[in-house]
Amino acid sequence: MSYFNNIGKINYEGPKSTNPYAFKFYNPEEIVGGKTMEEYLRFGVAYWHTFVADGSDPFGVGTMQRPWDQYEGMDLAKARLEAAFEFFEKLNVPYFCFHDVDIAPEGNSLRETYKNLDTIVALMKDYMKDSKTKLLWNTANNFTNPRFIHGAASSNHADVFAYSAAKVKKGLDIAKELGAENYVFWGGREGYETLLNTDMKLELDNLGRFFHMAVDYAKEIDFDGQFLIEPKPKEPTTHQYDFDVASGYAFLQNYDLQDHFKFNIEANHATLAGHTFEHELHYARIHGMLGSVDANQGHPLLGWDTDEFPTDLYSTTLAMYEIIKNGGLGKGGLNFDAKVRRGSFEPEDLFHAHIAGMDGFAVGLKVAQKLVDDKVLDDVIEDRYSSYREGIGLDIVQGKADFHQLEEYALGLKDIQHQSGRLEKIKATINQYLLTAFAGE
Amino acid sequence: MSYFNNIGKINYEGPKSTNPYAFKFYNPEEIVGGKTMEEYLRFGVAYWHTFVADGSDPFGVGTMQRPWDQYEGMDLAKARLEAAFEFFEKLNVPYFCFHDVDIAPEGNSLRETYKNLDTIVALMKDYMKDSKTKLLWNTANNFTNPRFIHGAASSNHADVFAYSAAKVKKGLDIAKELGAENYVFWGGREGYETLLNTDMKLELDNLGRFFHMAVDYAKEIDFDGQFLIEPKPKEPTTHQYDFDVASGYAFLQNYDLQDHFKFNIEANHATLAGHTFEHELHYARIHGMLGSVDANQGHPLLGWDTDEFPTDLYSTTLAMYEIIKNGGLGKGGLNFDAKVRRGSFEPEDLFHAHIAGMDGFAVGLKVAQKLVDDKVLDDVIEDRYSSYREGIGLDIVQGKADFHQLEEYALGLKDIQHQSGRLEKIKATINQYLLTAFAGE
Amino acid sequence: MSYFNNIGKINYEGPKSTNPYAFKFYNPEEIVGGKTMEEYLRFGVAYWHTFVADGSDPFGVGTMQRPWDQYEGMDLAKARLEAAFEFFEKLNVPYFCFHDVDIAPEGNSLRETYKNLDTIVALMKDYMKDSKTKLLWNTANNFTNPRFIHGAASSNHADVFAYSAAKVKKGLDIAKELGAENYVFWGGREGYETLLNTDMKLELDNLGRFFHMAVDYAKEIDFDGQFLIEPKPKEPTTHQYDFDVASGYAFLQNYDLQDHFKFNIEANHATLAGHTFEHELHYARIHGMLGSVDANQGHPLLGWDTDEFPTDLYSTTLAMYEIIKNGGLGKGGLNFDAKVRRGSFEPEDLFHAHIAGMDGFAVGLKVAQKLVDDKVLDDVIEDRYSSYREGIGLDIVQGKADFHQLEEYALGLKDIQHQSGRLEKIKATINQYLLTAFAGE
Amino acid sequence: MSYFNNIGKINYEGPKSTNPYAFKFYNPEEIVGGKTMEEYLRFGVAYWHTFVADGSDPFGVGTMQRPWDQYEGMDLAKARLEAAFEFFEKLNVPYFCFHDVDIAPEGNSLRETYKNLDTIVALMKDYMKDSKTKLLWNTANNFTNPRFIHGAASSNHADVFAYSAAKVKKGLDIAKELGAENYVFWGGREGYETLLNTDMKLELDNLGRFFHMAVDYAKEIDFDGQFLIEPKPKEPTTHQYDFDVASGYAFLQNYDLQDHFKFNIEANHATLAGHTFEHELHYARIHGMLGSVDANQGHPLLGWDTDEFPTDLYSTTLAMYEIIKNGGLGKGGLNFDAKVRRGSFEPEDLFHAHIAGMDGFAVGLKVAQKLVDDKVLDDVIEDRYSSYREGIGLDIVQGKADFHQLEEYALGLKDIQHQSGRLEKIKATINQYLLTAFAGE
Repeated sequence: MSYFNNIGKINYEGPKSTNPYAFKFYNPEEIVGGKTMEEYLRFGVAYWHTFVADGSDPFGVGTMQRPWDQYEGMDLAKARLEAAFEFFEKLNVPYFCFHDVDIAPEGNSLRETYKNLDTIVALMKDYMKDSKTKLLWNTANNFTNPRFIHGAASSNHADVFAYSAAKVKKGLDIAKELGAENYVFWGGREGYETLLNTDMKLELDNLGRFFHMAVDYAKEIDFDGQFLIEPKPKEPTTHQYDFDVASGYAFLQNYDLQDHFKFNIEANHATLAGHTFEHELHYARIHGMLGSVDANQGHPLLGWDTDEFPTDLYSTTLAMYEIIKNGGLGKGGLNFDAKVRRGSFEPEDLFHAHIAGMDGFAVGLKVAQKLVDDKVLDDVIEDRYSSYREGIGLDIVQGKADFHQLEEYALGLKDIQHQSGRLEKIKATINQYLLTAFAGE
Repeated sequence: MSYFNNIGKINYEGPKSTNPYAFKFYNPEEIVGGKTMEEYLRFGVAYWHTFVADGSDPFGVGTMQRPWDQYEGMDLAKARLEAAFEFFEKLNVPYFCFHDVDIAPEGNSLRETYKNLDTIVALMKDYMKDSKTKLLWNTANNFTNPRFIHGAASSNHADVFAYSAAKVKKGLDIAKELGAENYVFWGGREGYETLLNTDMKLELDNLGRFFHMAVDYAKEIDFDGQFLIEPKPKEPTTHQYDFDVASGYAFLQNYDLQDHFKFNIEANHATLAGHTFEHELHYARIHGMLGSVDANQGHPLLGWDTDEFPTDLYSTTLAMYEIIKNGGLGKGGLNFDAKVRRGSFEPEDLFHAHIAGMDGFAVGLKVAQKLVDDKVLDDVIEDRYSSYREGIGLDIVQGKADFHQLEEYALGLKDIQHQSGRLEKIKATINQYLLTAFAGE
Repeated sequence: MSYFNNIGKINYEGPKSTNPYAFKFYNPEEIVGGKTMEEYLRFGVAYWHTFVADGSDPFGVGTMQRPWDQYEGMDLAKARLEAAFEFFEKLNVPYFCFHDVDIAPEGNSLRETYKNLDTIVALMKDYMKDSKTKLLWNTANNFTNPRFIHGAASSNHADVFAYSAAKVKKGLDIAKELGAENYVFWGGREGYETLLNTDMKLELDNLGRFFHMAVDYAKEIDFDGQFLIEPKPKEPTTHQYDFDVASGYAFLQNYDLQDHFKFNIEANHATLAGHTFEHELHYARIHGMLGSVDANQGHPLLGWDTDEFPTDLYSTTLAMYEIIKNGGLGKGGLNFDAKVRRGSFEPEDLFHAHIAGMDGFAVGLKVAQKLVDDKVLDDVIEDRYSSYREGIGLDIVQGKADFHQLEEYALGLKDIQHQSGRLEKIKATINQYLLTAFAGE
Repeated sequence: MSYFNNIGKINYEGPKSTNPYAFKFYNPEEIVGGKTMEEYLRFGVAYWHTFVADGSDPFGVGTMQRPWDQYEGMDLAKARLEAAFEFFEKLNVPYFCFHDVDIAPEGNSLRETYKNLDTIVALMKDYMKDSKTKLLWNTANNFTNPRFIHGAASSNHADVFAYSAAKVKKGLDIAKELGAENYVFWGGREGYETLLNTDMKLELDNLGRFFHMAVDYAKEIDFDGQFLIEPKPKEPTTHQYDFDVASGYAFLQNYDLQDHFKFNIEANHATLAGHTFEHELHYARIHGMLGSVDANQGHPLLGWDTDEFPTDLYSTTLAMYEIIKNGGLGKGGLNFDAKVRRGSFEPEDLFHAHIAGMDGFAVGLKVAQKLVDDKVLDDVIEDRYSSYREGIGLDIVQGKADFHQLEEYALGLKDIQHQSGRLEKIKATINQYLLTAFAGE
């Protein structure tokens, strides 16, 4: 059966407009920066937002109209799976991502949950044989069930730590089975409601222990996917331990885990933490820790995770600039951790939304590549930092200078001549690149 | 003499690229929506940021390099004036705006301040005779001097109220003399540091009295410019009385002033108040209160007024959409209440920054006009609200319905059929309009 | 049966410690400012948070353990009702509040919903005969059901307007039947997700029409409760129409509704709008619009409505200061629109939380009354504004001054002598009042 | 001469009310937790806010009335010094802190600046001989002068790096000379205005090099004070490198500096970064990195550094709780990095403000010590985490568990029994401790 055929053609009349579901700007076969767009962008569909979420919010119940909602239990799980692969094919998308509970319902016992997962994973593996769409990453949902009320690996209750470990172990088995390229840790409840009843030291130590066990188990089963930590500063907890990339990096170094993990960076989590998306990508990149991306956007005036589809072309351009400078994302990709608005409840909206996001990043890629090719920002930086390529500057970066030498040099200085930072001109230039990137298209 | 000739040509190679200072997208003579761009956009240069500000911030002294800084006192005021009209001409801008203290130094007495103002105003009038550039608005700076420490018209001290009145009276005389099209009230210190020592009722009543006196005086001298209130939620005070357009509108209605004032809406003030720029414009527009615009932008992650030059094309597009729907700004204009960054300290940056802003709004105008011409949003709205054009909906908007009729109708309803709000598709469409607006340019 | 007896005694050993559920600071019979605490504070329990909410959040399902959860449908509604009146009695609280859907399940039709409501309202009326606890206010939940997806009275769909009208009509009938002292409008979905698909003018006009119909109907049925609008800036919508008290007041004036409504002010909504709780209370008070209070608190670092029980004694003190200055709340009260944390899932927590809030406001009342009695802030204000009680200041407030007179006065002024605002001393004094208010208790 | 005698007595009638400048709650000789209050609290006066700042803000010039403002240049520096030691004595405060430019004016050359510093440092040393007040820390102001426009140690210009090094070298010499207990690095301009023109990798590497040079030089001169980094997320730069304690800790580990530095944590910087003050203290404490405190508070609704004197007793209590748990601050102290409001411009306000802050922390100390003595929070935590003291929990914390063992355990689990987190009860209890701490005083 088909879950989406009644929607009809959605065609934005771009370069591949002969396809029934077609984009305006994204062309998977177009070469940009030496790779096809598809190879560069590595888009992934988020199973939870697209096939599971119902549009409920704290003040309203679900609104989504989904053709598979006539089913229940394992039948629902199977219907979603079928719909998912139809969607992947129609959208022509190379990757998808899921939490365990997205694909199969929890059973009355952990054993039954395992069984449900095994059933669906076997079916999924079959679908994948006939599909180009691969598993970017999977993860364990250790936050929805009431057992995770006080945390998972950082719970105050050792039983929950054990339960979480079992779920992650199973998740790694599934990752291995399905050939996942990464495994993600988002610590939904790893944080605190209040410091007043929290032993943060014990909780962080336990998190460190948990991650080491996961590393050991992955080695044991020869899972060679990349481990990813996904920072978020708050929500659902008041303060989460992986607040941002920097705090995650502090944690990884402190527990000697930095060689085993990279970061999965989400745009909306970045802004909730007080950083731009590109800041988080940049920080991770220069520390060799940029792993993958949750491609969405937040609302700058709302204080919660809105998980909007990414349409801000400034954000996609600056994100792709970092990714190009990183030489691509390696095993990572651009997972749409984004949901259609509660008022966009028709199945058709799922297509519009994904196309909006994919077009948004296609534009970002092309504009960013042009900025790189023309050395627009590189020239600015080469010029601004030229003083470190000779004389005292070279001594400094080569580690030859000390306070004595520098003081002597400083005492001999006349007025220091600065250059303008030229931010307004740079911004005008970026606008010019953006507006002319698709001239004639 | 020339203050800017040593900068050389700044040419972004747009349609008017034969000019030495040329834009990429702004073409004053181009017709958009039945008017020339120049007529529609009515750009104004802010005297304070461009000719007075020194680049200091709370943690650093001034950095700006300005050729007129070799002068002092009234000589400095005259040099700035000369530089200003050179700048206006080079930029080919139709308007400018100032506070009293921007153009002439305060004297040792109010009488001496008046004299300084008179001298400069006479000179300014002469410059204006030979210039196309007119006065969009002027205003009184009733916030910098320590006498305004506890407010101006809302001061706890009646002497300050009187002093403020004198300055506004003089400002209205100057507005009349120079043919200002508007007169602006930004209440920099009209608010409170703390409620704990504040009589808000008396302060608001006094503000109301003050505005009525200003209205009376303008009538007396036959000044026919538009009076404008400029909302800002906070900074420098903890809480300002004109928090946003809605609170300003509440105030104006409460003191029966709504027929005498409109709003001067600043983008950065909007976002500090928790609104988008377009929200404030829209709210003012549908209440018949949209007067003029302070065209700048803030930083979404910074909690203070950054007054950046407007380069975000989403913001300029949605702002121009409101302005087009308003039938233009009437006597108002787009004043660049924006400052070059502290690190953009060279005179050349003043050109880059203004060009960035003017190009930004030129793009916004063209994209918005195309959205209007193609009825992109109008069609969405006409469709979404169609139920109010017949049956019970028509009864409602015609005032014929009551709770009895509506209850009876509701009791007879089957399931209500909703449509998707289609936000993702609308956003994708706006991106397509943006990216193709300058195809070939 | 009893739903709470197994909890045992909760006794904070305050003045009424002989009661099994006893407070530390709240003593309903204690006279403060000429009234008993119970008369002054008029506490109300929020039916939804206390008897309905399950502790779910956007990342997790419900956690609350409630003895009535063994029931379903109308049986559940009846069990909750029984539990509620047991709780009211144990807590000895004078008021409660509810939305229609809190007390009775929605039926398959509006008619069935009415029937369910009628059944429960009749039972409730019986309980009320034997209870001291009265109905502070009721309201219609016009936001949870998917039919309100695009608004209620501001929906784009006329059918929803009609449905909302029917629910409010029924709500007013219930208010009349149960002797509610107020009727509240919180416009959960009255706002917009995006301006891009919204006709704000039509929606506001419709809201105005809706409120007039409600006023007319209340008059028709002789309901003499106070109508209250409850502002909230955002959540669930991106931007709500009743953003804050000032914007609500602008709306009411614009639609000539200001004589029929007052405001129900929530602490957490105030802070989400960028105001302190006391600001909103103060603004409403001096405009004669302070109606009632949703007594809770938010988290200053979280951007969503946390609805915490009010324990911040600065906030309760400054809130009670405004309420005392208002001569009390009239028909209004202090409704605990507050929920126990998701991790506080035991029934016992409902007692701790309400006691924390009631003690918090009892302290606030006593400290504020002492500040009033000692004229701590009144003296500051009398002194600071003394210049308006004679000379030019008196002319100003008596409406005798104009710009000519004020200018002449200003020209004759020497240096204006200011006083310090003394904020630090005032804050130190408030701390001293707070710390010594319960000396010996 | 005396700078403050004309103020008269300021006496809050507390335990030491015989002193002319007396507190309500602070009693330096009172024993709390085994130390005198003075030993525990180690208060410091910030030279810049108290003796240098003029009350200017971005919209207004200075307002402060200071008796030493009749002087200029080095005479002004000497007058301030005299006034400072008079103030320290009257306030009976054990410490002070300064930036180089606070105590002596910059000269026309670095050499002249050194000379000015030498003159004042020699005088200061003399004052210190006759005073109990010692130097808590000094630092270099590498942010006010235009040469630091693009950063200091992270400048794009090597000359500025060198100049900064010279200033810090001199600062360390002064620290050694005056017996400073710490040396602080606040990187006012160490961050970026925009990523678009920034080489963050080079800037961070240079910061790392700079700190190593400082460590080497301190060793060379046998300066044994504690090195402190002071995090701040933004302002003046858009994004500062030492965003918060966690990001600073990531940096220190990455550059192998963690053994040489601790953190100087400011309350207002914490909240600007999205953390509570106590979070930052706690995080630093459990990582062995809590060095010193900048004791102030911000305004929760304002997005900039307000540097208010600390009067929020919740904040002082929770801060002191962390400090007590840390065994005190070692060489660190509580420096009032706080300024009187612009409207509190009289010298008298300096006393009220410091007394408000010292009383605020005295209350915090006493309440926190009582919470520690009664094991209020310790008991909660001991109970909540008891599962880690036996069985599978003990195996986990002892490093004996792996995913196989945990999975087996989890598969055998029945329902996990959780306890309520009891946050509301804990908050009520803290209020009770606060209100009864000074019963009878």
